[in-house]
Amino acid sequence: MKFSILQEKLKEGLHIVERAASKSLTLPILNNILLSEEKNFLTISSTDLEIGIRWWALIKGEQEGVITVPARLFSYFIDLLPSEKISIEVKNDTLFVTCGNYKTQIKGTPADEFPIIPKIPKDEFVFIDAAPFCQGLSQVADIPTHSTTRPEISGVYFLFQKNLLTVAATDSFRLTEKQIPLKNDATFKKEYSFILPQKTAKEIITIFGEKEGKIKMYFSPNQIMLELPMEETDHPSVQLTSRLIDGEYPNYKEIIPPKHTTRITVRRDEFINQIKTASLFSGKINEIKLTINPQVSTIEIESRSAESGEHHSSLSGKTEGETIEISFNHRFLLDGLLGIKSAEVLFEFNG
Amino acid sequence: MKFSILQEKLKEGLHIVERAASKSLTLPILNNILLSEEKNFLTISSTDLEIGIRWWALIKGEQEGVITVPARLFSYFIDLLPSEKISIEVKNDTLFVTCGNYKTQIKGTPADEFPIIPKIPKDEFVFIDAAPFCQGLSQVADIPTHSTTRPEISGVYFLFQKNLLTVAATDSFRLTEKQIPLKNDATFKKEYSFILPQKTAKEIITIFGEKEGKIKMYFSPNQIMLELPMEETDHPSVQLTSRLIDGEYPNYKEIIPPKHTTRITVRRDEFINQIKTASLFSGKINEIKLTINPQVSTIEIESRSAESGEHHSSLSGKTEGETIEISFNHRFLLDGLLGIKSAEVLFEFNG
Repeated sequence: MKFSILQEKLKEGLHIVERAASKSLTLPILNNILLSEEKNFLTISSTDLEIGIRWWALIKGEQEGVITVPARLFSYFIDLLPSEKISIEVKNDTLFVTCGNYKTQIKGTPADEFPIIPKIPKDEFVFIDAAPFCQGLSQVADIPTHSTTRPEISGVYFLFQKNLLTVAATDSFRLTEKQIPLKNDATFKKEYSFILPQKTAKEIITIFGEKEGKIKMYFSPNQIMLELPMEETDHPSVQLTSRLIDGEYPNYKEIIPPKHTTRITVRRDEFINQIKTASLFSGKINEIKLTINPQVSTIEIESRSAESGEHHSSLSGKTEGETIEISFNHRFLLDGLLGIKSAEVLFEFNG
Repeated sequence: MKFSILQEKLKEGLHIVERAASKSLTLPILNNILLSEEKNFLTISSTDLEIGIRWWALIKGEQEGVITVPARLFSYFIDLLPSEKISIEVKNDTLFVTCGNYKTQIKGTPADEFPIIPKIPKDEFVFIDAAPFCQGLSQVADIPTHSTTRPEISGVYFLFQKNLLTVAATDSFRLTEKQIPLKNDATFKKEYSFILPQKTAKEIITIFGEKEGKIKMYFSPNQIMLELPMEETDHPSVQLTSRLIDGEYPNYKEIIPPKHTTRITVRRDEFINQIKTASLFSGKINEIKLTINPQVSTIEIESRSAESGEHHSSLSGKTEGETIEISFNHRFLLDGLLGIKSAEVLFEFNG
């Protein structure tokens, strides 16, 4: 193995790939990343056996080969090198790295111990714009809760339909659903659904969230794979593979009330601020009371604690329907409001 | 007690004063801050019995009085209020706060339980420019280590001499000394020295580091007091009182070698980067080797670990004296270098 690459390029790839390298004590090879040189491509891969990440770069290759090296050490080391050309050569399972006046030898491990990241059939896929997809996913990805008895709600539910992707998540107290429009370039006929582990959802947001272009997402019964192509080529630049969660997602549409008797539209920032203030006086049970009075277009927010004191504030907004008094755990209200990015929010109540 | 004050002003004061409010379980009153209205001044005070902080604001006072309220709750609450005028009134040990459309009651505790922050005689003092003082102090404040057997090295040593303040700190492995020029407006005759607790040093940096103007520092055998005046008045704006550490500071000047046989001047950033890189291969004992060769004006940096690999890099600099090979714990070298802010650093070695 022998090649050269610019420090900035290699650094960029390592920051992506090291995310899946785990800190496994039982299987130490998972702490490593796999470097592989083939033709004029360097491939760097990592896996924690649930998620696999691959990243490619065009290089000036001189001799093909494979090796694994400790992920954190190698990534941190490359970070520290000057922004110049790096030459890398492998001899006797040792990486010889030269850059400027740095000469370093890093002990590697042969690649044959490294687990194979499973490939998935490339029949079923859909294209999604990276930015709106990651932004939408980020609004639901914090909601799932780890559940051993109901593993299906530990993940994010994906439902692809013609022109529409719906992502949903619940922790059994709260439910969040986000709809993301799709261009009509998918292979599936009617619809396709699966449950993605929460960790994968968060990695997708981190890895693809800052990228431009279209992600190509491949489906299979147990796994998905996301790929983003290199600029002006069909070759992938970065690829993420993840197992899916087995099971049937709860039919959450049933619990969304079909009707409302009161509806309000308020400024999100002001509402958040007043809820936070009221939360200071909400006592141990986190309870705050909302009184919505459509006749005077106001929402009153109250809380009271025997220890710290009591609070009352109000804000005006568009209101319609019946007068209603309703109590909430301020944490659930805030979590929901913080996930929404618009300037105004709409609430519907059914008593 | 009844007054009004702008939200931004009160917020600024609370952020300063709440720093000394402790999380004491044995003496819960220390979790509170003392609000006191006298003439047209609001005073807010806090103490953890080692450090006391006082802050003043000009207000539109309507009725004098004192009360204590929970520090974190009150400060966080004021943070959340809109940037408008706040009206505060105390009735039955409860603070009634009105701001915009917020109406809040906060339960207080009578002020008579609150400890008295000791006053110190105002005979001995010195003026110091806040910015260079805090900047210099920040370069030594991280060095002291907590020692029960040698409490004197848990603090920062201050030595005031004519036109010069020397601050020094050690953890018994390393020693840092910084000299800060003084204008000649002190009351002491020849010199004055004391040991300041590390925590106080850090609080001084936080509270006064961003301020402009001259700090007036008062001395007494067991305590010091720092004051910064309000703009265009003699009235203090903020005041910090701290106990001092008893004991004799070690005569550290004796251990500074009087002579050197080799001297180098190198670029700090480059040197730090190469030490960090070498540290990755320095093994469990953190050892890196420097070879200084004045004949070719280079410093070579090497490290070697049986597990991770080995490293060699070099940098050029001004060098004079004898060729020397010397090993260091990279952490001590880095801590020292990171404390220095200049572009170039000078090292002197005596073998």
